[in-house]
Amino acid sequence: MEKERETLQAWKERVGQELDRVMAFWLEHSHDREHGGFFTCLGRDGRVYDDLKYVWLQGRQVWMYCRLYRKLERFHRPELLDAAKAGGEFLLRHARVAPPEKKCAFVLTRDGRPVKVQRSIFSECFYTMAMNELWRVTAEARYQPHRDPGHRGGSQPKRRAPSVRPSREKRQLVLKRPKLPSGFQGRVFKSQSEAVDMMDQIVHWVREDPSGLGRPQLPGAVASESMAVPMMLLCLVEQLGEEDEELAGRYAQLGHWCARRILQHVQRDGQAVLENVSEDGEELSGCLGRHQNPGHALEAGWFLLRHSSRSGDAKLRAHVIDTFLLLPFRSGWDADHGGLFYFQDADGLCPTQLEWAMKLWWPHSEAMIAFLMGYSESGDPALLRLFYQVAEYTFRQFRDPEYGEWFGYLNREGKVALTIKGGPFKGCFHVPRCLAMCEEMLSALLSRLA
Amino acid sequence: MEKERETLQAWKERVGQELDRVMAFWLEHSHDREHGGFFTCLGRDGRVYDDLKYVWLQGRQVWMYCRLYRKLERFHRPELLDAAKAGGEFLLRHARVAPPEKKCAFVLTRDGRPVKVQRSIFSECFYTMAMNELWRVTAEARYQPHRDPGHRGGSQPKRRAPSVRPSREKRQLVLKRPKLPSGFQGRVFKSQSEAVDMMDQIVHWVREDPSGLGRPQLPGAVASESMAVPMMLLCLVEQLGEEDEELAGRYAQLGHWCARRILQHVQRDGQAVLENVSEDGEELSGCLGRHQNPGHALEAGWFLLRHSSRSGDAKLRAHVIDTFLLLPFRSGWDADHGGLFYFQDADGLCPTQLEWAMKLWWPHSEAMIAFLMGYSESGDPALLRLFYQVAEYTFRQFRDPEYGEWFGYLNREGKVALTIKGGPFKGCFHVPRCLAMCEEMLSALLSRLA
Repeated sequence: MEKERETLQAWKERVGQELDRVMAFWLEHSHDREHGGFFTCLGRDGRVYDDLKYVWLQGRQVWMYCRLYRKLERFHRPELLDAAKAGGEFLLRHARVAPPEKKCAFVLTRDGRPVKVQRSIFSECFYTMAMNELWRVTAEARYQPHRDPGHRGGSQPKRRAPSVRPSREKRQLVLKRPKLPSGFQGRVFKSQSEAVDMMDQIVHWVREDPSGLGRPQLPGAVASESMAVPMMLLCLVEQLGEEDEELAGRYAQLGHWCARRILQHVQRDGQAVLENVSEDGEELSGCLGRHQNPGHALEAGWFLLRHSSRSGDAKLRAHVIDTFLLLPFRSGWDADHGGLFYFQDADGLCPTQLEWAMKLWWPHSEAMIAFLMGYSESGDPALLRLFYQVAEYTFRQFRDPEYGEWFGYLNREGKVALTIKGGPFKGCFHVPRCLAMCEEMLSALLSRLA
Repeated sequence: MEKERETLQAWKERVGQELDRVMAFWLEHSHDREHGGFFTCLGRDGRVYDDLKYVWLQGRQVWMYCRLYRKLERFHRPELLDAAKAGGEFLLRHARVAPPEKKCAFVLTRDGRPVKVQRSIFSECFYTMAMNELWRVTAEARYQPHRDPGHRGGSQPKRRAPSVRPSREKRQLVLKRPKLPSGFQGRVFKSQSEAVDMMDQIVHWVREDPSGLGRPQLPGAVASESMAVPMMLLCLVEQLGEEDEELAGRYAQLGHWCARRILQHVQRDGQAVLENVSEDGEELSGCLGRHQNPGHALEAGWFLLRHSSRSGDAKLRAHVIDTFLLLPFRSGWDADHGGLFYFQDADGLCPTQLEWAMKLWWPHSEAMIAFLMGYSESGDPALLRLFYQVAEYTFRQFRDPEYGEWFGYLNREGKVALTIKGGPFKGCFHVPRCLAMCEEMLSALLSRLA
């Protein structure tokens, strides 16, 4: 018991220190003080090698800054809030390609002109996460949201700030909050109406009519579901419903629908999680049907663990641990070199993606969250051992002790293949989200032991 | 001299035998005898792991079969012609997404229903190459093309078969040609009107109005030119103009325009070939502007060598050898492990593509062609040594002595990363084109020495 406590304590410190170093990297190198928003194309030492702004990553960084500002006292600092607000303003002004249409760009120029648009929902999802979290930060700062008079559309009732009484720690935070610039109140509030309006649009695209996404209808294209879609929606359901009874109620059925859809990706008598299935939950033919992404399954795993925890569904929890945690780890962990493969084929054939055997940072950060959460909720020591195994590999292989942040892309053998710290798909998100969540879970485990 | 002759002779035999082995692989494994066209998703041993049909690869395989049938007596066999015709029929029936519109699909189901459409010109280019080459094969077989009565549009005059008198070898081939099925005459002819009509459409998209490709106009997207576009057009100019005075004349100015546009990709005082430049030939900012693809530059190199040879432009030839052959090789050859990097950044920064350091088969087959052609045309022994260097690496690392054909994807160190022999982007094209062209050039060099 004392040994366990010591190991947990050591990891809590290691994780917390790493979070500080990682955030220092982004705070130092990524802020665009001229246009707002963030540079994410950063070389090993943090130098900007491209100034394009990827909307996924802009939204994620706003979300991350607000989340840390809101949840961890040592990050409750004006520089985080100011940068998040400047990022939020940048998104409000520029993310949508042709307002009042809701479709967001995939990538913008430094000053916000659209460069590319994807025919999917993900830019809009990260936009929603950013806006909701931005509102939470300022709502907790006693800014009472009210409807934006210029708000378009609007089937939803007026939104109110979560009414839960802040904890002692939160009340302390409130006292320390920076003075917000005048005129910000309306904006803050707008960010929540933006979030809810955008959520409704996303749900409409996914469940009613995808035609607004601009995908052509082709007779040979099977109606398939990527697991990313219900995962992302489930993530938004949790985001919007946190300490918000009204929205939690409004999206409860949607949350159950998402969970059911994710669970449909368990195929072959429970022996494989497949990334793409037919809309009625059957395996698809060819490479598309056999495609597997172990890190994504593990991420879905912890989304589902949270869902089962909210629903108090212990049977679901056990099923999720078996199929979304243990199964992808068993098939996806490289016995020769360690680390999780990026892609696999369910029949064991060679994937067609050139990067299939590479080791990417995010499957490993998702795996750390999943196993620590699985252990926290089930108490099964096998899951704690897997957390340690993944965390040891991850800290050894991905960290850059010289310049901070993590490398994102290793070859199969674990050697750094790309020295960049950020790029079109890697920003300030998976690493600090993992570290902050693990720090919180480790603290809770230590409290339980005490 | 004798030593040189022996080495050339040995390589000619090695290359010729390898071509036979490679073609045996595709002839055995890739034919879809039910629907026509070709399976290209083939595992190491030739097993079909997906039955999707990628239009680029369908067109390329039709072209390759016809080309070999037409150029090399040992491939003048009914099984090649029949398979090419069945592939051509499949394309005629299915490639276009919504006839009479000319836009072709990127990928089709096995039975020809469109799955995905790209907003670029390449499916249409390979369709054009296939149709023109199919017409040549049958035209040389004395099938006199005439206009298809059902032909749509049509600003171009009636096409006639090339009027050049066939060489003795070709006349021999004609005598041995298989009996064509009745009713094929009209079809054959259609393939040429298809080729010319499609060429006109492609030129219209590239030089006049790209709106038919379906790309959105976005204010942040710079008007950039990918080197692939003028390269592909130059390749078509050569294809359509071969032994066809009328079409050669018709596209002569286009050919010069393409060459000028490709040459604009030489930047930084002649010290770098960049994949993307602005439409008026300036370097673009960011990763897009710094992106380099050494194998692609080498391929452009031999396209330009052929162009300079047709134009009798010795100054251009020398410039091309310096900038499109020697420069990409110097910067792109991996001094540590051998082989050409897939992508590079002109400032020496880390590329953002995960596969940048991998060694792909096609840059190496293009480099073999480029150096042997450079040597054949200039007589510079340094280029012959580079041919040997690349060819030794390529034969050692990519060949599969066990099952035939080449592996396509090695890691940086030269280890096979993907065991597939064909996939969404690898079919029956680069390897046999390289081997057939090298065999022809080596024969010509040996004749000169004799």
